[in-house]
Amino acid sequence: MSSDISSNFLGPVKDSSSIRLDLHTWPEVDDYLQHCKGIILPLGSTEQHGPTGAIGTDALTAEAVAMEVGRRTGVLVAPTQSFGMAEHHLGFPGTMSLKPATLLALLHDLVLSLASHGFERVFVINGHGGNIATAKAAFMEAYSTVLNRKLPVASRFQCKLVNWFMAASVFTYAKELYGEREGQHATPSEIALTLHLEASLQSKQQPLPEPAPVGPIHGPEDFRLRYPDGRMGSDPFLAKAEHGSEILDKASTALTEDLSNFLKQS
Amino acid sequence: MSSDISSNFLGPVKDSSSIRLDLHTWPEVDDYLQHCKGIILPLGSTEQHGPTGAIGTDALTAEAVAMEVGRRTGVLVAPTQSFGMAEHHLGFPGTMSLKPATLLALLHDLVLSLASHGFERVFVINGHGGNIATAKAAFMEAYSTVLNRKLPVASRFQCKLVNWFMAASVFTYAKELYGEREGQHATPSEIALTLHLEASLQSKQQPLPEPAPVGPIHGPEDFRLRYPDGRMGSDPFLAKAEHGSEILDKASTALTEDLSNFLKQS
Amino acid sequence: MSSDISSNFLGPVKDSSSIRLDLHTWPEVDDYLQHCKGIILPLGSTEQHGPTGAIGTDALTAEAVAMEVGRRTGVLVAPTQSFGMAEHHLGFPGTMSLKPATLLALLHDLVLSLASHGFERVFVINGHGGNIATAKAAFMEAYSTVLNRKLPVASRFQCKLVNWFMAASVFTYAKELYGEREGQHATPSEIALTLHLEASLQSKQQPLPEPAPVGPIHGPEDFRLRYPDGRMGSDPFLAKAEHGSEILDKASTALTEDLSNFLKQS
Amino acid sequence: MSSDISSNFLGPVKDSSSIRLDLHTWPEVDDYLQHCKGIILPLGSTEQHGPTGAIGTDALTAEAVAMEVGRRTGVLVAPTQSFGMAEHHLGFPGTMSLKPATLLALLHDLVLSLASHGFERVFVINGHGGNIATAKAAFMEAYSTVLNRKLPVASRFQCKLVNWFMAASVFTYAKELYGEREGQHATPSEIALTLHLEASLQSKQQPLPEPAPVGPIHGPEDFRLRYPDGRMGSDPFLAKAEHGSEILDKASTALTEDLSNFLKQS
Amino acid sequence: MSSDISSNFLGPVKDSSSIRLDLHTWPEVDDYLQHCKGIILPLGSTEQHGPTGAIGTDALTAEAVAMEVGRRTGVLVAPTQSFGMAEHHLGFPGTMSLKPATLLALLHDLVLSLASHGFERVFVINGHGGNIATAKAAFMEAYSTVLNRKLPVASRFQCKLVNWFMAASVFTYAKELYGEREGQHATPSEIALTLHLEASLQSKQQPLPEPAPVGPIHGPEDFRLRYPDGRMGSDPFLAKAEHGSEILDKASTALTEDLSNFLKQS
Amino acid sequence: MSSDISSNFLGPVKDSSSIRLDLHTWPEVDDYLQHCKGIILPLGSTEQHGPTGAIGTDALTAEAVAMEVGRRTGVLVAPTQSFGMAEHHLGFPGTMSLKPATLLALLHDLVLSLASHGFERVFVINGHGGNIATAKAAFMEAYSTVLNRKLPVASRFQCKLVNWFMAASVFTYAKELYGEREGQHATPSEIALTLHLEASLQSKQQPLPEPAPVGPIHGPEDFRLRYPDGRMGSDPFLAKAEHGSEILDKASTALTEDLSNFLKQS
Repeated sequence: MSSDISSNFLGPVKDSSSIRLDLHTWPEVDDYLQHCKGIILPLGSTEQHGPTGAIGTDALTAEAVAMEVGRRTGVLVAPTQSFGMAEHHLGFPGTMSLKPATLLALLHDLVLSLASHGFERVFVINGHGGNIATAKAAFMEAYSTVLNRKLPVASRFQCKLVNWFMAASVFTYAKELYGEREGQHATPSEIALTLHLEASLQSKQQPLPEPAPVGPIHGPEDFRLRYPDGRMGSDPFLAKAEHGSEILDKASTALTEDLSNFLKQS
Repeated sequence: MSSDISSNFLGPVKDSSSIRLDLHTWPEVDDYLQHCKGIILPLGSTEQHGPTGAIGTDALTAEAVAMEVGRRTGVLVAPTQSFGMAEHHLGFPGTMSLKPATLLALLHDLVLSLASHGFERVFVINGHGGNIATAKAAFMEAYSTVLNRKLPVASRFQCKLVNWFMAASVFTYAKELYGEREGQHATPSEIALTLHLEASLQSKQQPLPEPAPVGPIHGPEDFRLRYPDGRMGSDPFLAKAEHGSEILDKASTALTEDLSNFLKQS
Repeated sequence: MSSDISSNFLGPVKDSSSIRLDLHTWPEVDDYLQHCKGIILPLGSTEQHGPTGAIGTDALTAEAVAMEVGRRTGVLVAPTQSFGMAEHHLGFPGTMSLKPATLLALLHDLVLSLASHGFERVFVINGHGGNIATAKAAFMEAYSTVLNRKLPVASRFQCKLVNWFMAASVFTYAKELYGEREGQHATPSEIALTLHLEASLQSKQQPLPEPAPVGPIHGPEDFRLRYPDGRMGSDPFLAKAEHGSEILDKASTALTEDLSNFLKQS
Repeated sequence: MSSDISSNFLGPVKDSSSIRLDLHTWPEVDDYLQHCKGIILPLGSTEQHGPTGAIGTDALTAEAVAMEVGRRTGVLVAPTQSFGMAEHHLGFPGTMSLKPATLLALLHDLVLSLASHGFERVFVINGHGGNIATAKAAFMEAYSTVLNRKLPVASRFQCKLVNWFMAASVFTYAKELYGEREGQHATPSEIALTLHLEASLQSKQQPLPEPAPVGPIHGPEDFRLRYPDGRMGSDPFLAKAEHGSEILDKASTALTEDLSNFLKQS
Repeated sequence: MSSDISSNFLGPVKDSSSIRLDLHTWPEVDDYLQHCKGIILPLGSTEQHGPTGAIGTDALTAEAVAMEVGRRTGVLVAPTQSFGMAEHHLGFPGTMSLKPATLLALLHDLVLSLASHGFERVFVINGHGGNIATAKAAFMEAYSTVLNRKLPVASRFQCKLVNWFMAASVFTYAKELYGEREGQHATPSEIALTLHLEASLQSKQQPLPEPAPVGPIHGPEDFRLRYPDGRMGSDPFLAKAEHGSEILDKASTALTEDLSNFLKQS
Repeated sequence: MSSDISSNFLGPVKDSSSIRLDLHTWPEVDDYLQHCKGIILPLGSTEQHGPTGAIGTDALTAEAVAMEVGRRTGVLVAPTQSFGMAEHHLGFPGTMSLKPATLLALLHDLVLSLASHGFERVFVINGHGGNIATAKAAFMEAYSTVLNRKLPVASRFQCKLVNWFMAASVFTYAKELYGEREGQHATPSEIALTLHLEASLQSKQQPLPEPAPVGPIHGPEDFRLRYPDGRMGSDPFLAKAEHGSEILDKASTALTEDLSNFLKQS
């Protein structure tokens, strides 16, 4: 990493306890804010991931990438928000979803809390496509509140959402490995990352019938009719833990650079 | 247009009065629903468009494209929602913005009204990037409400947002005409379309200094500091009414096809 | 009009492009605010208007009156908010309604946007009785927010709702023309105005059976049971385009005076 | 009262304990609903009423009229909602106000509770002009919820707001007594009614300077500037307890007839 | 009462008109605030209280205790909020309930009104267990708003909820009188207090069958199934008016001391 | 554990992967629901815990107890909601708080998701006193929604909040170990549990000055003034990891029994 980065980052740390906000004390956060105004917030979802994928896939993966980006940069990582907007998956047992208006309020409040302490850059590492729209809406709502409350950071406060699964290097790698069978939900790439993270998930892997083809996403009933086992064109049986290890590295490298740019930009 | 389309569309109409919902009576809408379950909703914004662009650009353009798509297909066009999410432009006089939570509720209610009558496809033609996130969030909220209220259309109800300025043919054409000087806000392509629609706007055109370069969008204060005259990397002086005419045609062609696919899809 | 008015108004303009906010640039609005702190916001509804009336009647008429008042005074006219509170008309296809709480939030946000720019008088020209209650509630909510945010205009900010169809001169004229057959919804006076504005509507005119008598307004089911074809005691077949022309003039004269007083008052 | 009325009303009762909902048991309400589907809800406000008027004027008077109407008809009277929408009076100490959105939700919930039990007519006796808009908006919101929840009463459920101070007989009587000095807030007629109800208030009566003239109502700051002692053109020193007694009778007579019609109407 | 108390309290008053906010004028409240920053807000509920208990029990009792505490201390008593959170009682006719989110907004607004006038201590005397959670949530929401609006009292503003039926002396006395037959809803102690307050309620008293045993509280359907006549393990037939008199005294003594401490504390 | 319990529980499991919802697939949840209708939801907070305590204390401890209760019973454990209502701690950097209204909506949505799948018992294991009120309010709101949406589980759906730190055995043990120095926030007992869970926290332990005495909790400014280093009467330096191990066992034993009763009860 370039010296530019080191001037924004506190630099790589040895273990995750050095960057987990939940393992810091408040005076430590106070000190941290003297040197860095950035923080990472992992955002996941708790929703079906096909007949063999873990319901927590989006939270597990977002957290793993966030922790790795944190370790490489020394930027604080907030606890993972494991519940997101998954209304369209509510036709499958185990899905726990926040309505868009609720997620909007939640992210607004979290981001406002950070702004009130003097954080100026909130970097949301997201593991779920369904959160993107609402998160962006929440940021706009938060900017207005920050201004209306005349918080000192008002003119400098910035939030950014990054989706680890959309990093170009991750995307290319997944295409190489899985081609068209990557699909769009319960993808082998995200499943591979969970296999790398949680060995117990390996035992759930099994060959699956041809998935429903990729298509649009609408309401819960429509989704279950269109994608009866929850997969959208994907073949998660192709996933392997070693792919997941590589994906984690690629995603973390890409997002570390994104974070660097985000912290540097005026 | 292919025969496939004609089976979903009612076909081209001579004048806009045949497809404007606001010029229909309720029994006419009742009849219409026997043959077509689709409707177009134009969504704009009322916000600054640089020192020479019209504040109504996003609503004027969305409405024009929507009307043309309606004329080509016979699909009903609802009145234009001229106010959208423009919080980041509130630093410039004349901008009228809805908070994300408000726009979410508004689109939810409009879409629910349509679902209650038996419409099954709501095609939102959007003229403003800032609406995208919130509109998508609103659709998800609406799908859940449609289900929770057990409306008869619940399993078939679909909404789709299309941005006329993101149609590939429009994008390519704008690149040919303006290259990098298209920019991202108050773009020559959208200004050209307004010049085509409203002759009075021509007199506002004038050479402008080099714009602030394209960059991120955050809160209102940040936006005004970053883009002092409201433009993001654009040179709207390049815009010409004849470009606008062509853009309207290209956008309408592209969106007509999108609409056709949307109405056809199960 | 007296010279008093001219000191508040910018004076009559030649064409509507001079007073349409959506055709202004932001620097033009900045200049305008040096001379006038008032703005007109047309508010309509998209709802059934009987078997022969246009669904857009309330928006079309509010917009027409607003534009005429703008032309006579030079006061800026914002884009029309075409969707209002029409819950009770949801039993008829084509009606698109905002819940009261949504319309309240919408008007709150629009009015706050204007207050933030330094507008001190928002003159809402309304075409729909169903909006009145919610709009007044929204103004009170907005006044409190303006105060709580300590906006500079807080002590001077005023909103006013005027209903063109309640102007005394309009009311008297309608009585003369239609007597009791004016009714209360889908009235010949509002239909006449739409005939004047949109020639295509003439072809929908036809004799109708005796309408359900005027009565109270409750929920959508009750409304449809009570007023099976959507009319409340009205005979819109009496409407003629030339009446509409006169009504537009009378309403505009009355509301121009209202606006003058509103801008003058401390 | 005609026999028609007696078929809707349970008839006059001896004392208020027979019609106070709060003194009934739930089985008594169950019985009541076999014979009458109507209920009265008194709605007041807790807000400044000039230098000599009681802050509780609007709640005290609404409750008194409601109780008297209840006694004459046998219709149940719910507890008084003493807090209403009084944002514009917040510049005066002691005012306790609900924001419009809050009052809307409150009335929605109360009315829904009643609908869920099978009440079909809610007669809101209101003592405060500032509540009117929001209450009407709340009724529309409630009708939609009643329908969306498919409550058995959906097609029959009706709410009605009546303002005791707007009854024609009260209005005429006040004009006779006080002429122009009735004013519009802290009026002698409402103060007279409170003097009749609460003897202790007599001692606060005193001659007052000329009031600020009647004018518009906007935000709290504007209100206090415009009406420095809280009165709008009124001379409450003219009020006498014996007037109040008469006003109570006139208002109760008028509203009893209104209630009769409301219960009778289909 | 100690002299400490007298320095915070204005001292005992002769009659309730001296401490009822609704019988004060705004200048009187202004004067009051020079000497005391505290106010009492009685909070009740309108809900079933078993087959023989009054629906208004919680409001009647909260108001009675509040008035007595007010009389003993001279602290102002606001009007009673008679409707609270009683969703679980909605299975019984006559219950009128606010949803938790609505009660939260209501208490927030009332408390904010008081804070805006300079009140620093709001002492909510509550008569209903179901209000406790929401009221506490509302206080936290209010504290944040007070801070975000930068109200002058921000660093000193405090709210406190006290439940008269949980005062140790009341609890002990009820145990002595009724033992296990006190139960948890429609308890003889609260019924006794209503018998003391409203003589007409005596006639409703009658022996009742063994009540359903005390258990948990969940939704309305569950509640009615579990507690078919509305009682939770209580025998309200044991209640006597003279017990109620004693309970009122004990509760008032306990809460007067609580209030004293609350006003004294920094 | 008794046989009674085994009939409700699925029985102890070997490792946490067997009870973590996030490591299950949706068909596994479908199977699970055939045998058990219960689920555990850990609820924490991200807030200051004094100068030496971890900001994540409440989430870490709630999660640890939840996982242990899950392991002992085989009941599914949902992901931890790490952000709760911590408005009063916002004066200390690092605190991330949801407003009460937001937490209410969040818990409502999560609980509704579970109800829609057929879960009948939601057992919330809570680590933060500040969440209690809002969580209870949320349950009541959820019960009503479950009923209004006519979900099949409506009459059986139950939620229960348990606070691990309030278990009698934990309370007694903490008193034995720390006496009065347990305090009320950043207590040695909760810190001890975090030391047991996260070895890295040991290094933060250090002797601290006498804490501010226990007192009331109001707004953020008041809290920081009253408790300058964030502690409420506690001496967290007394905490030892081995205490934490014991506390985890005691809390898990107590809550396992609570859960057993909760699942058994009709």
